[in-house]
Amino acid sequence: QLLYEKLGKSSRTVDTELEAQIEMLRETQRKYLNVLRLSTALAAQLSAASNTQRALGEAFADLAQKSPELQTQFLYNADTQRSLTRNGETLLAALHFFNSSLHTLANKSMEDTLLTIRQYEAARVEYDAYRSEAEAAGTGVGGSGAGGEGVAARLERQRSVYGRLRDDSAVKLKLLHENRVKVMNKQLLLFHNAISAYFSGNNVALEAAVRHFSVPGAL
Amino acid sequence: QLLYEKLGKSSRTVDTELEAQIEMLRETQRKYLNVLRLSTALAAQLSAASNTQRALGEAFADLAQKSPELQTQFLYNADTQRSLTRNGETLLAALHFFNSSLHTLANKSMEDTLLTIRQYEAARVEYDAYRSEAEAAGTGVGGSGAGGEGVAARLERQRSVYGRLRDDSAVKLKLLHENRVKVMNKQLLLFHNAISAYFSGNNVALEAAVRHFSVPGAL
Repeated sequence: QLLYEKLGKSSRTVDTELEAQIEMLRETQRKYLNVLRLSTALAAQLSAASNTQRALGEAFADLAQKSPELQTQFLYNADTQRSLTRNGETLLAALHFFNSSLHTLANKSMEDTLLTIRQYEAARVEYDAYRSEAEAAGTGVGGSGAGGEGVAARLERQRSVYGRLRDDSAVKLKLLHENRVKVMNKQLLLFHNAISAYFSGNNVALEAAVRHFSVPGAL
Repeated sequence: QLLYEKLGKSSRTVDTELEAQIEMLRETQRKYLNVLRLSTALAAQLSAASNTQRALGEAFADLAQKSPELQTQFLYNADTQRSLTRNGETLLAALHFFNSSLHTLANKSMEDTLLTIRQYEAARVEYDAYRSEAEAAGTGVGGSGAGGEGVAARLERQRSVYGRLRDDSAVKLKLLHENRVKVMNKQLLLFHNAISAYFSGNNVALEAAVRHFSVPGAL
């Protein structure tokens, strides 16, 4: 049937609004998975940098003890690296929460809706195949009969399967949209507040952000 | 000669103060190379994070265009990531300057002094070997003669080689100390100011720091 459709030899049942929403969902999923890939990489890179800063803090503190001639200079560098390491841990807790929520949204919630959509699309193809067959039977044989009645009954049954899956898809898309906006609204605010606070050295705001958003694992 | 010394069968000429300075230099070089290894790793990690933030900024900006329902949230995240990327480049210029100066200090200046010190140490071993030989000749044969005079002349020549290299080492150690304190004083201040300014979101201070320390490649 898909082949016939591509060759233009068979017509295709189209629900324009629903298909636009499906196309949009697939694009959104792709884009969110790209953000997830980048934010996961960022968390890993900042975590590595934070570990290096911890080691640098220790190296500077050790050199401060052993170098009276540069003690002050080594000491303030040791202090800076240590305080950045502490804030880095709070930031990473926030990033991990963002990544985990985005992972659930893109790989669980969206996938669940896309599973129903794939069933809907398969049912649509099957329905259109029966429909083409019924039309060919109607045109070719002309009259009706036992065979004709069988085709019509199968067509009717498939139309109802198709209709049910179309309604399921529409409902799931609506619920997914609401869920997505709610989750992303919260997570994008957390991401922004945590990153801004960290990179402005505002550890009070950083800790307030992870508390406000109930980030798991944060102090 | 080194083996005889270890077995306690031969005495060793010792310049306590110089040897303490040499031991200190070797320890300082080890510690500075460790800091260089860590600060090079930090620059690479922050550079990777900065590239990820650039890509994240673009992904957020793209999503802001395509998602009217979350436009504001995506937009402020795009702005934050972009401004962090810009500041990241300035910070990296400062870190590269720090790393390059520390590399020159630990791998060039300190190595040059250590080369003279290794020559001095070899001359010391050779001098002590002649000295043991001369002592053995003096005790065994008792008197003097052509052979005895040859040993004494060689010993005298080697004592002067040893003395010259000892003086060279002492001078180089003194110059290296002055150079090291000057370089590290500047670089530790730059490192601290650049890192503090970057991680407190103070791009004015960050740019002032790289200008003040004439960081190459910075805007």
